[in-house]
Parts: sequence; C-alpha cells; structure tokens
Amino acid sequence: MITINKSLSTPLHKQIFLRFKELIEKGTLKPGDRLPPTRVLAGTLGVNRTTVYLAYEELWSMGYIESRPGSYSFVRQRTGLAAESAVQRKSLLDWGKLCNPLLNELNERRIASRLKNFGKSCIDFVSLSPDPAILPAEAFRKAMNQVLKKDGRSLLQYGDPRGYQPLREYIADFMNRHSVKICSDEILITYGVQSALSLLLKTLVKPGDSIITESPTYLTAIPLFRLHGAKILTVPVIPSGMDLQALEALLQKNKVSLIYTMPDFQNPAGISTSQAHREYLLRICEKYKTPLVEDGFMEEIKYSPKVVMPVKSMDSGNTVVYLGTFSKFLFPGLRIGWIAADKELISRIATLVYYELLGGNILDQAALNRFCRDGQLEVHLKILHRIYRKRMQVALRSARRFCEGENISFTRPTGGYLLWMRINGTQHSEEKIISKILEKGTAVVPGSFAFADTPPFASFRISIGHCDEAQIEEGFRRIGQALDELKIK
Amino acid sequence: MITINKSLSTPLHKQIFLRFKELIEKGTLKPGDRLPPTRVLAGTLGVNRTTVYLAYEELWSMGYIESRPGSYSFVRQRTGLAAESAVQRKSLLDWGKLCNPLLNELNERRIASRLKNFGKSCIDFVSLSPDPAILPAEAFRKAMNQVLKKDGRSLLQYGDPRGYQPLREYIADFMNRHSVKICSDEILITYGVQSALSLLLKTLVKPGDSIITESPTYLTAIPLFRLHGAKILTVPVIPSGMDLQALEALLQKNKVSLIYTMPDFQNPAGISTSQAHREYLLRICEKYKTPLVEDGFMEEIKYSPKVVMPVKSMDSGNTVVYLGTFSKFLFPGLRIGWIAADKELISRIATLVYYELLGGNILDQAALNRFCRDGQLEVHLKILHRIYRKRMQVALRSARRFCEGENISFTRPTGGYLLWMRINGTQHSEEKIISKILEKGTAVVPGSFAFADTPPFASFRISIGHCDEAQIEEGFRRIGQALDELKIK
Repeated sequence: MITINKSLSTPLHKQIFLRFKELIEKGTLKPGDRLPPTRVLAGTLGVNRTTVYLAYEELWSMGYIESRPGSYSFVRQRTGLAAESAVQRKSLLDWGKLCNPLLNELNERRIASRLKNFGKSCIDFVSLSPDPAILPAEAFRKAMNQVLKKDGRSLLQYGDPRGYQPLREYIADFMNRHSVKICSDEILITYGVQSALSLLLKTLVKPGDSIITESPTYLTAIPLFRLHGAKILTVPVIPSGMDLQALEALLQKNKVSLIYTMPDFQNPAGISTSQAHREYLLRICEKYKTPLVEDGFMEEIKYSPKVVMPVKSMDSGNTVVYLGTFSKFLFPGLRIGWIAADKELISRIATLVYYELLGGNILDQAALNRFCRDGQLEVHLKILHRIYRKRMQVALRSARRFCEGENISFTRPTGGYLLWMRINGTQHSEEKIISKILEKGTAVVPGSFAFADTPPFASFRISIGHCDEAQIEEGFRRIGQALDELKIK
Repeated sequence: MITINKSLSTPLHKQIFLRFKELIEKGTLKPGDRLPPTRVLAGTLGVNRTTVYLAYEELWSMGYIESRPGSYSFVRQRTGLAAESAVQRKSLLDWGKLCNPLLNELNERRIASRLKNFGKSCIDFVSLSPDPAILPAEAFRKAMNQVLKKDGRSLLQYGDPRGYQPLREYIADFMNRHSVKICSDEILITYGVQSALSLLLKTLVKPGDSIITESPTYLTAIPLFRLHGAKILTVPVIPSGMDLQALEALLQKNKVSLIYTMPDFQNPAGISTSQAHREYLLRICEKYKTPLVEDGFMEEIKYSPKVVMPVKSMDSGNTVVYLGTFSKFLFPGLRIGWIAADKELISRIATLVYYELLGGNILDQAALNRFCRDGQLEVHLKILHRIYRKRMQVALRSARRFCEGENISFTRPTGGYLLWMRINGTQHSEEKIISKILEKGTAVVPGSFAFADTPPFASFRISIGHCDEAQIEEGFRRIGQALDELKIK
C-alpha cells in the first residue's frame, strides 16, 4: 500500500508519512492495525531505515499511531475525537448563561461605540489616538532593531513586574517636564491607562465599595468600574471642572475608595482646570484621606503656552496616583502606560501584576526607551504640537462657522484633540442626532456613553485625532448640515 | 539680571531660559513678579524678539511663568508644589491599609518563591522557561524588522481585542498538530496563560464561587484564584493524574464554576494522564455541565513518541477551554498565549479584554506570526526537543544516581522540563530541606507553594529549563548531598 517516488522533491520520509496519513484518515488502515516494522518497510521500499523511522515519528507526534511495549506501532484508537469541524459542533453548555451577564450587555455597546462599520467616505471623528500618518514608525523600527541586536535574548525573558528599569527612570525624568519630582521606585509600567485603572481597582477597591467619577467621564472606564462591582458616585463637570462643592458633599456622606479625575482636556468635556481648582481638589482629597487618581492621558499634548501643571506636581503627601500613557501621543498599539504613585502602593500593584500577568513585555519597553533616549520623542512631540495646534484652530473655526446656534455649545480646548458638543432644548433624542450626523457622512461618539447615570442633555464627542485639516472642516460642515435639518440651530 | 554670551554653543533662547529658571528657583524672582515684555528684553539683549519668545514659551510649558490677559508674563505662583524629592516625602495616607490585604502577604511569598537572591555559582532549578541560550533571538529580530518595515504604522495602532487575525489563524492550524480541530473564531490571544486564567475567572467565576484544582497545582495560579475571591476545592493528584473518583464526589456535592487541569507534565507533579483518563475526565465535565480548563503549557515539549492528545481534541461539545502559550518553548518575555474555546465564550472574553486592556500588542503578535510562518518555529521546536530529551535523560540518570532512597520518590516525565521530588517519612520540615539544598548551591521551588491547602508531605520542584547537562548533573549531586546530610536517604 505504501509507494514512494524518488524523483519527486518531497523528501522520502515525508512521502511515507503522507501516504500513511491518507490511509488512516480514509479508514483503509483501522485503529489497532499494526504497521510494518521499520526494518521490514525500509527493505521493501529500498530506503534507509532512518527514513522510515522519521516518518513513523511524525505519525506518532501527530497522534496517528502509537507504539506499544515491544516496539511495534499500531494505528491509534481515535474514538471520541471531535470529528466535525468547528462550524458543525454544538455546545453542550450554555456559555451565554455561564458568563458574567454584564459582558453580554457591554458587548453590544462596545460594537456600537466603535462604529467601525462606517464607510471609507465617512469622516472619522471617533478614533481617540494620534493620526497614524504622522507617527515615526521608521524611527521606532530602528530602535527596536537596535535593542534586539544588542540584547534580544535577555529582553525576551520574563522581566520585573514593575517594568523595564531604564524606561522607568526615563519616565521619572520625563515627568519633571511637568514639575513632578519622583523617582523610578514610584513608577510601574502598565499596558496603557486601561490596564492601570483595572490594576488600581483590584488593589484599592473591594466590590461594592464606592468610587467617585466626574460626570461625564472617560467612557471606557465606566464599564470597567461596573465589571469590578464598584458603586459609581458622580460629580458634575461644570465649566471650571469637577464641581468641588458637590465633591465635598459626597465625601461627607460616603466612604469612598478613590476619586477619578482628568484635569487636562477632560474626556469628553474638553475642560482644563485652573491651578487654584487643582490645589483645592488636592486639599479635599487630603482632608478626607481619599486617593486621587489623576488621568494625565493628554498631558503631553499641551500646545498652548498657558499650561497648568498636573495635580501630582503639588502632591507633597503622596495622595495622588498619576496615570500616564504613550498611546495618545505616540503608538497606541504599543500598549505602554504607567502609574506614578507612592512606593508602597507601587509595590502592591507589582505583586498584583505578577499574579495577573506575570509582567509586561520588556522588549517593547526597551525599544521605546531606546527611541526616547535617542531624542526621537522630543522631535516627535514638537511635530505633533505644531500639527494639532493648527488642526484645533481649524476645528474651532469650522465649529463656529458651521455649528453656531443658541442651542449648541462646545468647548474650546487649548490642547489635545477632543471637542465636546452639547445640544440644549431639542425634542430630538441624542441617538437621532448622532444617526443624522452619520447619515451625512461623519461619525461621532454619543455623549451618553460618557455618563454613568442618565445624561442631562444630548451631546457628542468629536476627536480630530485621525483627521487632516480638510477632513476636519468637511466633518464640521456635515455636522452643521445635520443640525440644520433637525432644526436644532 | 539677564546676560547672554553669543560665543557659546548653547542657543541664545536656551541661555535666556536657563537664566530665568535659575533666578526663579533661587527666589530672586518671586511669584507674581513681572517679566519684561519680549520686545523690551530683545532690545536690551540685542537679539531677535523670537529668541526671547522661545525662551518664554519654554518657561511657560515648564510651569515657571504664566501669562495674563493683556500678554504680560509673570512668575507663576508655585505654592503647594512638592519641593522635596521623593525620598524625603512622607505619605499622608496609609497605603498599606488601603490596599487589598492579600497583596501584602503575597508580596512576601512572590519574593521568596523567585529566590532571585541566589548567587552566580548556584544552580537554577527554579526558572520555568526555556534556556535563553537556545532561543532563536536573531531569527525573531529579522521577523520583527520585516513586519515593522512592511506594516509598522498600522501594526502600532489599536487592534482587535481578540488578537492579530493571521496569528489566530496560525494558532488554529497549529493546534491541528494535536488533532484539535478549531477555527480562528475560537481563538483569543492573551498576554500568556496567567492573563488567560485571570480573564477566565472574571468571565466565569463570581467572587465566592467554587472552582476545582488539582492538588498540587500551578503555584502561581493559587494566589490569582484567591485574589479573585474564588473558593478553591482540591482533588489530589494520584499516579494516574487527577483522582477522578474524588472529582466526581466533589461535583455531586458542590456547584462548581470550572475545573482547572494540566493533563501533560503536570506542574509540579510531572504526571501525564492516559487517553482513557482524559476521556473519562471529559465525560464527567459534560455530565455535570462544568467547564474544563485545560492548561496545555507544555503541550509543545513532547519529545517522546508516546504522545497523548489534549482533552480538547475530543471535545465535540465545546466543554473544554484550552490554554496555550509560547512562553514555555519560545520567548517568555513576548507575553503571548491563547485561549481556544467556544465562540460565544471567546466573544465575551473579547469584551472583557477591551475593558480591561483595550487589547493586546498587535506588533508583537505580527512579528511572532512572521517568525512562525517563515518556518522558524518548526526548526526551533526540533532543536528544543532534541536538547530537552537529552537533558531529561541526564536529569533522570542523575536523580537515580544521587538521590535514590526509600523515602524519596520522583516523577519520570516524557516531556517538558519539570521533575517533582517527594520526601516521605522525615522529621525535617520542607523549609529545612529546601534551605539545606540551597546551602549546597542549588535552588529549587518549595512543593508547598503548589498546594492550596496543607501539603501532605515535603516536596520540591526541579526545573531543568535553564540548565545544561553538566549543571543538571551537578545540581542533582548537590541535592543528593543535602539529603544525605539530613539523613533522608
């Protein structure tokens, strides 16, 4: 039954393997059937015995045959093997019911929120990351290639759960830009801000405990808080930032595990708070001995000279847990962010990282470190600032031109690439407004996604991260058209 | 007060910036002091006005000055800034008390378990990863360089939370090696097995719910289960594998969210179960409608032809959740593993990944995909099998030679690089035995770490992952010496 062809380029042992495989799969050879001894088959075929042995070894390792004491090989009993392909199989368990029910609901929302089904001609005011076209991928390739050449083997090993030490040192120095004086022991590298928030919840918040967020807040954080079982208390965002009187009132009545805030270019409201507001906020947290989680996701995209320093820069009592990320000004896919906080807290989070993830990817961290230390980050930030300063000017000019109206208000950010548009006094639902805008060819994020409770008005978030100046202008023109047709202006 | 020196190589604007910075930090210029208008200072210094403007802009962005309506610049009020360095600061909050108390306890254990304070001359029987010396780092560098050159920009963007599609397809094909027939929709890429376990807990296990593990089991999983608040029920590992009668008895009395097993080269016991055992285990899970989590961490390091296929290969009803990883045969630092399971479950986990992590690192996944598809994985696995088959022979020969004794038993694995040594009938504590071995210059992992409850005997785990043949022989010689001195043999 076994034939070989010595003139083919396929190695002889592979030919023997493939032929046996075929015979077994067709059922010509049945479970329990004995294969000829290697010596015998080698003689019959006129090949070296090793050739036959190699073929048998491959059959073994693929589970087609088994060997029994005394060295004969038999076709393996494969009863019970899932014969059908994945498509035909039917599940015995009701997986939908076994899973956390919240994941069902969130699944729907995740898909909706990403709106990735919009077409090519649609303007993307959704993506919250920097324009891929301006990212220095080539410089990063060189940095990656360099570290792999120099230390590839050791960088591909398990590393410190707190992250790659030289990058932690770089980040500590980097934060000095914003007058934050910390050392590398106070830094832990994470897979971005999302992972940092998740680690903080597990470290500081028991399920059922209360946390305070701004309202509106970072839309992807709300489901994370819910999944963790945290009770979300909200403080309204007013034009000056988080309403500090409302915050203090909440703290007087509730035990709260942490307060989550975004002082710069708040997502989605686009508001930056004043120095005085930050100082007062910190005093409140110190008074109530409550950790303040400061999300500095847009810290590096301050392109106006009127800069206010992070709350962390005033934090002489280690009350602030600062979250930073490279995703909003460099490569989002690299998944590198950091937590800057009290050393004791960092050491607890490192333990958690060890048990949740074993650690981060040290290679990526080393490549990023090389990229930064070669001065590439400085070069890139200058370009980024110039581009987004200009784009934001275009956005604000276009918003004024196309979307002016007494029922429409929008923020005027001095950094970042987010705008928030709020619609007052309309009988149309937010969903209706968003669909009308989408119909005109522009995708925006529903503002209601950013509220943990019922939103008090219709709104939507505009990100100009992925759009050039022409697209920005056109996007606002389309929004203006949609609002016109709904008679909102 | 401001002077410049045109003959220096430092740019003029930088000189102006540095001088102002110094004056402000020294306190010569005080908060609220007005800076000269750019025009005036430019005239005085005899420089271009832009030069002064650049200096002021840097002062602004560093938080030294602020500008007020009407364009004058003032030294910024920096009250409240954390003047002291990190070392001198004192925390206002008691972070130790605010953190999950379990993290304190685990922190101690994590450090102890890694035993990384052992010296250079100490033999490392601890590290559970492949020998860095045999890893194909250069081939990986080439693959990484290639994908960065071709698609760097898009690979550095956010990606599908389920992972890089071509790698998911590769993994689905790869599992066919072990007769597992699945499609890429049933695959989700994770940051290794640890991250996969953590995601599964959050998807399938509510805090307080019961899960079943083998006893002993994967030592790093136990704290993860505890941190999640799962109640751990244990089934003893007997020579044939998990005791299936004990398992069924537990399932009759308890509602269990999942069963966690390692059928191949169990960690730490080193046992591989038979085909019949696997079939029976699967039937039990199907009968009690309980998900079976099969950890195939050593699946690819089967170097004996007597191979038994994973339980997942028989799983015609999608009851098995299979965990795979590249960490134990390729690069542990890459942090890439996967979950193969029912599509509906995978889609729930993808939602969770989105909210916990936003997603994985697509670049690393693409580089690994390139590496594998270029045939490098096949080449590497062949080398790895040859090396570890030989090393395990040396280990078993050395164990017989140096550690034979009626109170000592050890497993005889046919794959992987783990051995487990069990000591019966001694008055010495496990801790004492481990210290004595360490004193002789060999580090092993305490067996008790692998028990969720009180260990019934003293034992320790030996990993030959990082040792060459000479080190393996010497390591066992030292263990033998230690056991001799304790009169255990």
